[in-house]
Amino acid sequence: MNDLINLFDFEAAALALLPAGTRDYYRGGAADELTLRANRDAWDRWQIHYRVLRDVAERDLRTEVLGEQMDWPVLIAPTAYQAMANEAGECATARAAAAFGLPMVLSTLSNRPMEDVAAAATRGLWFQLYVYRDRGVTRELIGRAQAAGCRAIVLTVDAPVGGARERDVRNGFSYPKDLPMSNLTGAGAQFSNPDLGEGGFVGYLNRMFDPSLTLRDLEWIAAETPLPVFVKGVVRADDARVMARHGARGIVVSNHGGRQLDTAPATADVLESIVQAVGPQVPVLVDGGIRRGTDIVKALALGARAVLVGRPLIWGLTVGGEAGARRVLELLRHEFDIAMALSGCNRIGEVDRSLLARAGELPPARG
Amino acid sequence: MNDLINLFDFEAAALALLPAGTRDYYRGGAADELTLRANRDAWDRWQIHYRVLRDVAERDLRTEVLGEQMDWPVLIAPTAYQAMANEAGECATARAAAAFGLPMVLSTLSNRPMEDVAAAATRGLWFQLYVYRDRGVTRELIGRAQAAGCRAIVLTVDAPVGGARERDVRNGFSYPKDLPMSNLTGAGAQFSNPDLGEGGFVGYLNRMFDPSLTLRDLEWIAAETPLPVFVKGVVRADDARVMARHGARGIVVSNHGGRQLDTAPATADVLESIVQAVGPQVPVLVDGGIRRGTDIVKALALGARAVLVGRPLIWGLTVGGEAGARRVLELLRHEFDIAMALSGCNRIGEVDRSLLARAGELPPARG
Amino acid sequence: MNDLINLFDFEAAALALLPAGTRDYYRGGAADELTLRANRDAWDRWQIHYRVLRDVAERDLRTEVLGEQMDWPVLIAPTAYQAMANEAGECATARAAAAFGLPMVLSTLSNRPMEDVAAAATRGLWFQLYVYRDRGVTRELIGRAQAAGCRAIVLTVDAPVGGARERDVRNGFSYPKDLPMSNLTGAGAQFSNPDLGEGGFVGYLNRMFDPSLTLRDLEWIAAETPLPVFVKGVVRADDARVMARHGARGIVVSNHGGRQLDTAPATADVLESIVQAVGPQVPVLVDGGIRRGTDIVKALALGARAVLVGRPLIWGLTVGGEAGARRVLELLRHEFDIAMALSGCNRIGEVDRSLLARAGELPPARG
Amino acid sequence: MNDLINLFDFEAAALALLPAGTRDYYRGGAADELTLRANRDAWDRWQIHYRVLRDVAERDLRTEVLGEQMDWPVLIAPTAYQAMANEAGECATARAAAAFGLPMVLSTLSNRPMEDVAAAATRGLWFQLYVYRDRGVTRELIGRAQAAGCRAIVLTVDAPVGGARERDVRNGFSYPKDLPMSNLTGAGAQFSNPDLGEGGFVGYLNRMFDPSLTLRDLEWIAAETPLPVFVKGVVRADDARVMARHGARGIVVSNHGGRQLDTAPATADVLESIVQAVGPQVPVLVDGGIRRGTDIVKALALGARAVLVGRPLIWGLTVGGEAGARRVLELLRHEFDIAMALSGCNRIGEVDRSLLARAGELPPARG
Repeated sequence: MNDLINLFDFEAAALALLPAGTRDYYRGGAADELTLRANRDAWDRWQIHYRVLRDVAERDLRTEVLGEQMDWPVLIAPTAYQAMANEAGECATARAAAAFGLPMVLSTLSNRPMEDVAAAATRGLWFQLYVYRDRGVTRELIGRAQAAGCRAIVLTVDAPVGGARERDVRNGFSYPKDLPMSNLTGAGAQFSNPDLGEGGFVGYLNRMFDPSLTLRDLEWIAAETPLPVFVKGVVRADDARVMARHGARGIVVSNHGGRQLDTAPATADVLESIVQAVGPQVPVLVDGGIRRGTDIVKALALGARAVLVGRPLIWGLTVGGEAGARRVLELLRHEFDIAMALSGCNRIGEVDRSLLARAGELPPARG
Repeated sequence: MNDLINLFDFEAAALALLPAGTRDYYRGGAADELTLRANRDAWDRWQIHYRVLRDVAERDLRTEVLGEQMDWPVLIAPTAYQAMANEAGECATARAAAAFGLPMVLSTLSNRPMEDVAAAATRGLWFQLYVYRDRGVTRELIGRAQAAGCRAIVLTVDAPVGGARERDVRNGFSYPKDLPMSNLTGAGAQFSNPDLGEGGFVGYLNRMFDPSLTLRDLEWIAAETPLPVFVKGVVRADDARVMARHGARGIVVSNHGGRQLDTAPATADVLESIVQAVGPQVPVLVDGGIRRGTDIVKALALGARAVLVGRPLIWGLTVGGEAGARRVLELLRHEFDIAMALSGCNRIGEVDRSLLARAGELPPARG
Repeated sequence: MNDLINLFDFEAAALALLPAGTRDYYRGGAADELTLRANRDAWDRWQIHYRVLRDVAERDLRTEVLGEQMDWPVLIAPTAYQAMANEAGECATARAAAAFGLPMVLSTLSNRPMEDVAAAATRGLWFQLYVYRDRGVTRELIGRAQAAGCRAIVLTVDAPVGGARERDVRNGFSYPKDLPMSNLTGAGAQFSNPDLGEGGFVGYLNRMFDPSLTLRDLEWIAAETPLPVFVKGVVRADDARVMARHGARGIVVSNHGGRQLDTAPATADVLESIVQAVGPQVPVLVDGGIRRGTDIVKALALGARAVLVGRPLIWGLTVGGEAGARRVLELLRHEFDIAMALSGCNRIGEVDRSLLARAGELPPARG
Repeated sequence: MNDLINLFDFEAAALALLPAGTRDYYRGGAADELTLRANRDAWDRWQIHYRVLRDVAERDLRTEVLGEQMDWPVLIAPTAYQAMANEAGECATARAAAAFGLPMVLSTLSNRPMEDVAAAATRGLWFQLYVYRDRGVTRELIGRAQAAGCRAIVLTVDAPVGGARERDVRNGFSYPKDLPMSNLTGAGAQFSNPDLGEGGFVGYLNRMFDPSLTLRDLEWIAAETPLPVFVKGVVRADDARVMARHGARGIVVSNHGGRQLDTAPATADVLESIVQAVGPQVPVLVDGGIRRGTDIVKALALGARAVLVGRPLIWGLTVGGEAGARRVLELLRHEFDIAMALSGCNRIGEVDRSLLARAGELPPARG
């Protein structure tokens, strides 16, 4: 693992280790994977017009999102079925996140029970919510998350139906039967078998999750829990603004990692318009293709309060379990720290929009 | 055939099955095939800024074009000599179209007689018209189409002379002598032999079809038949507007699938300007490179009333005859349905222009 | 030769036939060959927004440039040492040009004497002039061209010094000693040996040609001869306008086929600005990368009166001598004729600016 | 060496000769090397709209920067540890520079003592300064440079911490122990061992150099020496203007050759904005990717007073020691001379902004 020196190295190593079905499930995007690639490329198209002579001897990377403190502006993105990568699954990820001062967002489709994960996630656990057609199950999930000490609900809204995961279709991939959906107990236990019916994950999703969600459901969830509700999967400024008026306390700009609607825009391209639309009272997070410390600087410069990182943790888990996940975070934090210093920024608040311009564009004569 | 999960798969499978001459005839474009590729690429350059929380549990994909009802906004594009792909030819295509609730546009150069095709096309048949120098033949074709129950005439205007089909020239390709041009009987029978003279298809076209067509001919055809006349092959807004004033009831934005004038613009790039020019009373259809369900959403968002899909049906026919054609439509309909749901649209009328922006462009802060 | 169906085919065939030194001399550009490629690519970036229903049964492709009649708007560009491609050299080219109703521009560095070429070029010969440091030689060349019946002087201005022809340097290429510079007789005979000194062609050019040319020299040449003087090698609108004021009767937009200053702009990109600058009284011609009939339509739409085509004639000569050159012109004329018809244009005068837009750009709603 | 005819040839030859660690150290950039490539590509994206008929028989390429005379507008960029390429190291480079009438900028991390290099650099030596945490060492370096006859101080400001030199990390590269840091004697002797501690060059840099630099330090250095101080590593117009107010006499637009912050902008893209911001009293130099004579013309047209060239000298040293370095400069000077002539410029002062436009952009109708 010592010869893996950036997140791309971890990805390559993990892809070589995983069986084809799991590998493609984790790495894949919808259809032609144009959005999957666009997410990544969009960060590279932004360039950092760094400042110099700013005394960057002591950087302070801490930030907070609605009161949640984090040592640097990253959260672990929710990804399903982490035990396919490593037996310890979400617990290993949670311990790694905590070790690096980060909160984690736990998927509804976690293999490890949220209580166990919450115990490991000592720097904060948020709960990602899929809304089941059976609202009793949904209510139970929210209540249980609250009881487990989760500090926010992250409502996924970009998956009313499953995306065209063609890799999974070709592989005939479905979640392994021997791995539990450990959050689905009680009323939800009936839905805890991923092998229930046809069509793999997408089939499950289409049968279980409610495609009829509207703003009313968002309001219902916001009323159901004292936890702040983030809406995840937004790419439009008007959508974001409306959601903020109907109960969303924060927005996660996301296209589900390119796994839902192919040719959806890259998150880095729509982020700023959403930040401007909702205003400073509503924190905006972003995910999709963040692999370099400089990407985080760029997200902040475009107005994000923090970013979410998903697949790289899976690669870390695959390569080395918790130690692998830690190493991924260590590398990313180091890169971010260096990127801040070289950008001339000591604190998160010093990252401003003037740091960015599109690649190849000529800047104005500022100053 | 079960392992073919999208239209590109069908294309690859069909290309492997067809003899070189036929394969290149179907797949090829003019000259350097820049327009052929541009047609496809242009759809990908549009990105869908999808909406969320819109209750997409029940989608209604139906639409109509000048009274023609269709279950989803697709028509089968006219392509010649479908019996080269499968013996049942246009009849198989017609049955597949009908099974999926779609009208079909039949080529003048059909192998199966239009009456047979009309009987199979129970959800509607339109007739694509090439104007023969011999206007008696032309009049006969129109009358026969009308009698056979065709519900619209689609006048091709982008082929006053044949394009530079270099693949066909290299292959020495001409239509097989043993396949009849079954629509050319009576006065037209003299022109029913594709082997009549030199130069393959383009030679036939140049000898038979009238390069002197003007708006007067459009007026003549519109007066000749009570059927609505669509003009197919338009890429300019001014042309479209003038045609609407001279008898065209609808416009098909098309560059003949990239087979006529190379470096003509991609249809996805000119569509909107034409829609705006002719106004809401004149339905605008579009073809060229539509292969994904998301492409259809994009065409609608740019103002098209429906799209035409051509080559993919040929690939379906080649791979599996009528069953192959059905499977192609089944895949495309499923993709379109999913794309609508993930775009936050329940009905065709909910697809609006705000869903689209160019790849890499930064959207305004809407809302 | 029958299997060569476009100009690119001729290029590939000729490259395979020629010895490396000659091949690279003809095909090569300066330095990284960015301008060489840009010339070609720039034509492809323009797209033709063709018109339909225009009665294109009878096309008339004729035009004239300052009284010079040509059957279609093409001249043969001056290229040196055509006898390396075929023994008959410039005479073969001239016969081919005449057979297709075109004037030819003969290089100062012709292998065949201009009187012989003039006799073969029955549709008009123009003389390309390099200005020797020895003005007596220059005056002699002009006088001789006039006496031979040349109808215009084309003064090359983009070669005050030789470009960085790296292919030639690597190959140690120089003109063959056994091929005469047949225009250099009388006073010029002393300069007729290409092997005179070091550095190959560029060495010769630097020793012989005058880098001190100014507008005064242009005025001198214009006064020296009653023939109209075209200035060739202009890429700036201001330069073109000034030259028109100092004796130039016409402008040839050219960057010497990408052989002089690498990273000079593509001619297709600067053509229009020059046409607008000099106004309708000064005909503007253009060369550089014209290989398709559609390229000629585009040049006309941008305001060129005609185009010059160079290397493709060399490829024709190489492959089949005069017959090869004829075939190249036959293919190009056919393509141009078809391109005119498919663009909806019957006469040169019908080609207008509205036919063009940049690839991928969205057109306005015209009409 | 005779078959190496441009700077890219020298690069390829040197890369083949060097051991992997040294090769990658010299050639490499930070992280994904996007800025490394962008530096190069940005020059190519500018095109030269050359002038003609300007009498370029006698070019005068001389210029000056704050009184420093140079035969053509190039300085040798500071690069560390040149003795890895050739034993004579910086002395060889200095002799080559002097032979071609150029000043050299010597790195703090020179292998040869600055006094020796100054003796060789008869056309001027400038001293590149890294500020050590130990200001006594820094003061000693400045004083020694002054005493050695250096004529300017070039303060590097884009390396408060080391960049992500991933090639070096993979190679486990560190400076060879047997090569001295010859400028670090006296108080600095304690820091002269590159093997002092972990992390290779970047580790050394992070331990030794002061990340807390501010405008106060710039003022201190400017007050410490009568020599003009250039600030190197600036990519923002506002930064440049502020520095000019706090003691900088000149600016070097640079991103450290793409070795520090990846996705920093290409220098060719920000140069002009900086020139405009600081005004004509503050000379602006630029480095990054300059490999062709035309690149120098472009830099001047964008307002640079001169350019710095770094890695190509290393390639020259590697291939042929001082003779190799000379040959590199000879090739580049020749290219620049030709580029000036073909641009229609006789003197540096004739290079103006109108010579440039972006590739593919349509110029206005000037003149």
